[in-house]
Amino acid sequence: MALYEENELYLYNSLTRKKEKFEALNAPLVGMYVCGPTVYSDVHLGNCRTFISFDMVYRYLTHLGYKVRYVRNITDAGHLENDADEGEDKIGKKARLEELEPMEIVQRYTLGFREVMGKFNAIPPSIEPTATGHIIEQIETVKKIMEAGMAYEVNGSVYFDVEQYNTDNHYGKLSGRKIEELQSGTRELDGQSEKRNPLDFAIWKKASPAHIMRWNSPWGEGFPGWHLECSVMSTKYLGEQFDIHGGGMDLKFPHHECEIAQNKAANGDEAVRYWMHGNMLTLNGQRMSKSTGNTLNPGELFTGNTDKLTKGFAPSVVRFFMMQAHYASQFDFSNEALLAAEKGFNRLMEGWQKLQQLRSGGTSDFNVTQWKQACYAAMNDDFNTPILIAHLFEAVRFVNAADPNASGLSDVDLDSLQTSMHAFIFDVLGLEEANEQEGQHNKLDGVMELLIKLRKAARDDKNWALSDKIRDELDALGIQLKDGKDGTTYSIN
Amino acid sequence: MALYEENELYLYNSLTRKKEKFEALNAPLVGMYVCGPTVYSDVHLGNCRTFISFDMVYRYLTHLGYKVRYVRNITDAGHLENDADEGEDKIGKKARLEELEPMEIVQRYTLGFREVMGKFNAIPPSIEPTATGHIIEQIETVKKIMEAGMAYEVNGSVYFDVEQYNTDNHYGKLSGRKIEELQSGTRELDGQSEKRNPLDFAIWKKASPAHIMRWNSPWGEGFPGWHLECSVMSTKYLGEQFDIHGGGMDLKFPHHECEIAQNKAANGDEAVRYWMHGNMLTLNGQRMSKSTGNTLNPGELFTGNTDKLTKGFAPSVVRFFMMQAHYASQFDFSNEALLAAEKGFNRLMEGWQKLQQLRSGGTSDFNVTQWKQACYAAMNDDFNTPILIAHLFEAVRFVNAADPNASGLSDVDLDSLQTSMHAFIFDVLGLEEANEQEGQHNKLDGVMELLIKLRKAARDDKNWALSDKIRDELDALGIQLKDGKDGTTYSIN
Repeated sequence: MALYEENELYLYNSLTRKKEKFEALNAPLVGMYVCGPTVYSDVHLGNCRTFISFDMVYRYLTHLGYKVRYVRNITDAGHLENDADEGEDKIGKKARLEELEPMEIVQRYTLGFREVMGKFNAIPPSIEPTATGHIIEQIETVKKIMEAGMAYEVNGSVYFDVEQYNTDNHYGKLSGRKIEELQSGTRELDGQSEKRNPLDFAIWKKASPAHIMRWNSPWGEGFPGWHLECSVMSTKYLGEQFDIHGGGMDLKFPHHECEIAQNKAANGDEAVRYWMHGNMLTLNGQRMSKSTGNTLNPGELFTGNTDKLTKGFAPSVVRFFMMQAHYASQFDFSNEALLAAEKGFNRLMEGWQKLQQLRSGGTSDFNVTQWKQACYAAMNDDFNTPILIAHLFEAVRFVNAADPNASGLSDVDLDSLQTSMHAFIFDVLGLEEANEQEGQHNKLDGVMELLIKLRKAARDDKNWALSDKIRDELDALGIQLKDGKDGTTYSIN
Repeated sequence: MALYEENELYLYNSLTRKKEKFEALNAPLVGMYVCGPTVYSDVHLGNCRTFISFDMVYRYLTHLGYKVRYVRNITDAGHLENDADEGEDKIGKKARLEELEPMEIVQRYTLGFREVMGKFNAIPPSIEPTATGHIIEQIETVKKIMEAGMAYEVNGSVYFDVEQYNTDNHYGKLSGRKIEELQSGTRELDGQSEKRNPLDFAIWKKASPAHIMRWNSPWGEGFPGWHLECSVMSTKYLGEQFDIHGGGMDLKFPHHECEIAQNKAANGDEAVRYWMHGNMLTLNGQRMSKSTGNTLNPGELFTGNTDKLTKGFAPSVVRFFMMQAHYASQFDFSNEALLAAEKGFNRLMEGWQKLQQLRSGGTSDFNVTQWKQACYAAMNDDFNTPILIAHLFEAVRFVNAADPNASGLSDVDLDSLQTSMHAFIFDVLGLEEANEQEGQHNKLDGVMELLIKLRKAARDDKNWALSDKIRDELDALGIQLKDGKDGTTYSIN
């Protein structure tokens, strides 16, 4: 029996605003779509959190035995500077400023994004479709929406007719808005606009002469509206109905609202069964923002090369830190919290090391079966990783207190504990042990400590020949010993 | 003055079959297009060689001060199993066999390809356009070729009319073929074929019902012919005329021949000024081939996990090895040659290390200016890296013989030698020093050697307490000592 048959997974559906039992449309297959980055600048930490959260979701579903097709798009065209269908294309603008071809911008930031995600040990999605790779499909969908009477063309642009759609549907249902309120919140059209209604949004936009990224279409040269690509690519690769759609909270409105409308208009059905939204990051209690300087990027985080931090943190420590919060909670980054997370991470990893050495036999009152059930219960409760981590530390406390040669567990329980700890720490939470390089370094540290002790013993014996030999041979290796008040330290040249 | 203004670079133009002086169309800008991989399987070593060769070309042009836009495509659709426009799409077939969506195949092997290229320290191209990302552009080009009267539609497929093209052009000029010979070499059409002439090739192909990757077009649902994408994407990003087009020798015919014809037919001009072709790899003197088992893939090469090799080789050693041959020469891989290359690589890197410590003063007859000219002369002679490497070893011999404290060079010459060696080794050849991790490992090796000596001395003194202490403390660190006939070795747990 697959694990997913033994586990009742509940997840919070943003659309219904309640936790629902997850039932895959075509188990063991699961289709999951997550809105990916617009590749016109370095990925920011808030986006990283969203993608790491859904990486955890992907990992847990996979752990449960589902065969997940995980699609996360790359927006490489069509994302304008503001949501009012005006302004420059974000990538085109960056290209203009840097005197590059837009696709050079796309290449640079796509590679950068992948590198950062790799450091965070996020598994690459099954498919990473691009907007420019699906222009024809988007044009076809525009045609379908027009045929359904839910869109109209003006001067080479095509707009989605929100009012028309809203006669039989509820535009705003995901974000809990009513169309009347939305309308009263918009400015009057100034007579210049091509839109019939300020709420309408472009699904195809005519390219101005300066617009570089443009394609031929039945309405002339233009480019797809940004909201369209996700409707088109999710259903192309996952079917007209699929299981999970994720993204950052900030995309709920208008982006996801528009997706729902587009899919319904084009295909007659809503595409998504469970909408999931990750929450935002704050830094030192305040919203991250370039204009106030309250920012932290992944590079700064890893190196510590910023006045916001006293040191750099390994990606796995940062990931562990993020997992200590529920994906849908607001979450604050600070130096102090990261330092505390680092301690916790090390304690968890040391516990895991000790657990591997543990032997069965003796007696104990640690109930592995019950503990394991609690771990799954946490994850089955809308992916509650902080509770899971609390349970992992219960196990660590047991391991630390146990007699290594007679842990008090039966063979079966010990095996079960080791297997489950490994699965939750590495497969589900996606943490990594200090890597090979750090491993080597720790060995070197240990060996150097031993050599320093031997040298101290030689000096205590007044065996200067030996103590000098040790110092000189290390020196030849490019390792300098430094004798100080608190003992001897070493540095590598 | 930019370096490229001081250097007359000559390169072998496959089209004219002679070395020609390189003159950039729009210096300092240079456009270079290289045919990339079809991502339906792991990249093989022969392709790696081609891409590493053009990485070196890119690096040298950049070193000379050119601003190179380097485009290398990813073929993710349209590449059929054979050149006769029949058979399955390579990616579609793999997808069918593995029960995956074709784009999942594309994702897997694109990421794998990038990873291997990264290990070889190949710089990512400025743009990596995909065939599926340029369907509309390809359709536009098909239309243009049809308007020029050089293509015809049959049953939803469009074929390039080679005979018609050949009336005013020479189809076969790149590969040195005549159309009459080509025609006599083809089989008679069997009456089933839609082609007017066996030499004609598909630029748009109707999709059979089983074909997954398909797009709407003026000729119905289909997909572009494989040759078309390179014509379209090279000119889209580099202009209708551009400087350099590279690829493996095996692509000369028919792929590049067809590119030339397509560009001429669509735009009235040939696109490429300099055609460059990399040569093939053999393994132990024989063609690599899956069917005979005479293969070696990058993973096996790095790990040594194959019966073809006695050990693994660092990517930089392999790259150095490849650079010891001219890019256009056939080149044989063997264990012995790799072992020799490793020695050479280490000697070069040790020389570089020593050079950094060298001090000026004294006298010598090493003429840095002349040496440097010889290095550039080698590279300016069609990127002759083996000759360059021979010159680098001249410098290493000088460095090894020199008095470190009075090398015999003036300050200016020493600085020039150091700067040039760095530029040629790292920037142009793209080699990397043993990385940080290996560095740590070497330190650990050295320190362990010292500890083993100390323990041996303790045993010789019958100080069993000390020798046991060393063994036990290492054991606690996860390092095991093993005493054998030839001395003591260690292994890491």
